Amino acid sequence: MAATVVRFGTNVEVVCESGVVILDRKSAICVLGTGLIGGSVLRAAAGAGYEAWGYNRSPAGAKAAQADGFDVTDDIETVLRRAAADDALIVIGVPMPAIDSILSDIKLFAPGCVLTDVVSVKAPVAAAVGENELGARYVGGHPMAGTSESGWAASTSELFQGAAWAIGVDPGTHAQAWARVARLALDCGAYLVPVVAAEHDRAVARISHLPHVLAEALAVTGAGGGDLALGLAAGSFRDGTRVAATAADLVRAICEPNAEALLDALDDTLRLLGAARDSLAADGVLGELVDAGYSERARYDTLQRWEITGIRPGDHEWLERLREAGQRGGVIRTLD
Amino acid sequence: MAATVVRFGTNVEVVCESGVVILDRKSAICVLGTGLIGGSVLRAAAGAGYEAWGYNRSPAGAKAAQADGFDVTDDIETVLRRAAADDALIVIGVPMPAIDSILSDIKLFAPGCVLTDVVSVKAPVAAAVGENELGARYVGGHPMAGTSESGWAASTSELFQGAAWAIGVDPGTHAQAWARVARLALDCGAYLVPVVAAEHDRAVARISHLPHVLAEALAVTGAGGGDLALGLAAGSFRDGTRVAATAADLVRAICEPNAEALLDALDDTLRLLGAARDSLAADGVLGELVDAGYSERARYDTLQRWEITGIRPGDHEWLERLREAGQRGGVIRTLD
Repeated sequence: MAATVVRFGTNVEVVCESGVVILDRKSAICVLGTGLIGGSVLRAAAGAGYEAWGYNRSPAGAKAAQADGFDVTDDIETVLRRAAADDALIVIGVPMPAIDSILSDIKLFAPGCVLTDVVSVKAPVAAAVGENELGARYVGGHPMAGTSESGWAASTSELFQGAAWAIGVDPGTHAQAWARVARLALDCGAYLVPVVAAEHDRAVARISHLPHVLAEALAVTGAGGGDLALGLAAGSFRDGTRVAATAADLVRAICEPNAEALLDALDDTLRLLGAARDSLAADGVLGELVDAGYSERARYDTLQRWEITGIRPGDHEWLERLREAGQRGGVIRTLD
Repeated sequence: MAATVVRFGTNVEVVCESGVVILDRKSAICVLGTGLIGGSVLRAAAGAGYEAWGYNRSPAGAKAAQADGFDVTDDIETVLRRAAADDALIVIGVPMPAIDSILSDIKLFAPGCVLTDVVSVKAPVAAAVGENELGARYVGGHPMAGTSESGWAASTSELFQGAAWAIGVDPGTHAQAWARVARLALDCGAYLVPVVAAEHDRAVARISHLPHVLAEALAVTGAGGGDLALGLAAGSFRDGTRVAATAADLVRAICEPNAEALLDALDDTLRLLGAARDSLAADGVLGELVDAGYSERARYDTLQRWEITGIRPGDHEWLERLREAGQRGGVIRTLD
């Protein structure tokens, strides 16, 4: 098989006729925003042997990372000029409200870099990337991991071990850029779920954003029972309200950019709860909801994740094929 | 201080003028229904040195307990005659739908025994106990512990370590009976929350029964996103739906007898979710719910449980004083 050795920034790659992309050494990683998720990417990437550095808007946040031995500053220009010089893969780890500002900086100082993000919605980020004319080498990402803590102090190199990491397969995605982002996510210990932006956003509305809203409502309703109720609360309340401990600004930044899909999910839940409520009021029984909930939780518990093989970035219709495989529960655990 | 030594069944007690009740050795324990909670009471009581035996309706369940070395049979008459002969404390561990039948058996074979239960509602159990003329020596109980598993196989002697255990202080409660139930709960590793039946039921509707209903609704809404959504689900969905894995019949048995209080809690939640939904539709923001949820979860996380001291069973107005202390977050960790 004929192969062409090409240089892609500072990284040597071998591009075969079949479209296989092989990186023979790890690309540099520049993380913008070193909170819980971004900070954990920085730690995991450094731990996996990448040259990795970062930026944090808050000097205190940058200092905390420095104190732990990481190369993080609050000077965005210096960080991005270095990313441009080293052809680093830029990972955007700031929350949605800060995206426009950070994209303007990238456009100014490092417009040629491959770009990904770890934001919890994908279509709004993709739109902002497009408006800043940075779409050509952008690949959306979303590691499905987190805690109710936030900030560098909560970050760990282990956060993504065994976690799903959604990776964009939207039309027009650049194969080499995609492979670099995919490699990073795998090296952080995650497996990949290929998905297009709009489908990602509808899915996470149901399994990530809605849980936040329900946790808030449960926390408020429980506390309505006073200290007696809170004093009797055990596992079901503790687990059901866990993510209500997430900082309120962060919850808004996660959920509100996905308003349309979250509304659909909320309306479904309101219909289910309303029917159970009416059944309880009329007949003293919760009705269909209990069996349905049990069945669907069992479906989640027994969900088979199967491994996608034989589709390589750049192959004929690779994006469509990965999208379709992801819809059917397929995941990627290794790159050829 | 003058003291009268009395015999209370097989148990020697010292009743002082002040009303202090001292048990100088542990009473026998008879557990009816050796599922997750009843089975764990049997294990914990035996581990704490009580003479303890039990009954399980299902021969297979009884055999499973026997195989683990416990004295459990499926012969209710023999078990209850032994309880009557030994003046055992009877612990009812069957779900609400089986209460009437078990109370008929107790009335027939062991009507003089001190009686408690571990059912998740208190007013309906108290009513059934009253109808069976067993109220004189009944003390309601509800250990706030559990898992989404059920049956003997899920029971452990450690289930109640550090857990709250609601104990009835309804008007007319018998002081010696109360002290025996309290002692058992403490010996199982729990601390006591004194509460009257109606207030217990309103509280647990909010922090135990509502979480079950919300977990079911979240499980169904999440699964509405298909395998893609379930494949992306992480901690918030897993924790938010955990109790949806509880057997459906058990969820109904837990929630439906508390329909009136659960309706109140559900209506509060529906109002909160409806307001967030409308705000999201109109303005793209979740509104007040997010800050309120964060605050109330913080209130739960930082709740101070203070120790009730100086109120002994039989003291002047001991029931009213314990009830009032429980309402203010007081707990009992030791008996004098």
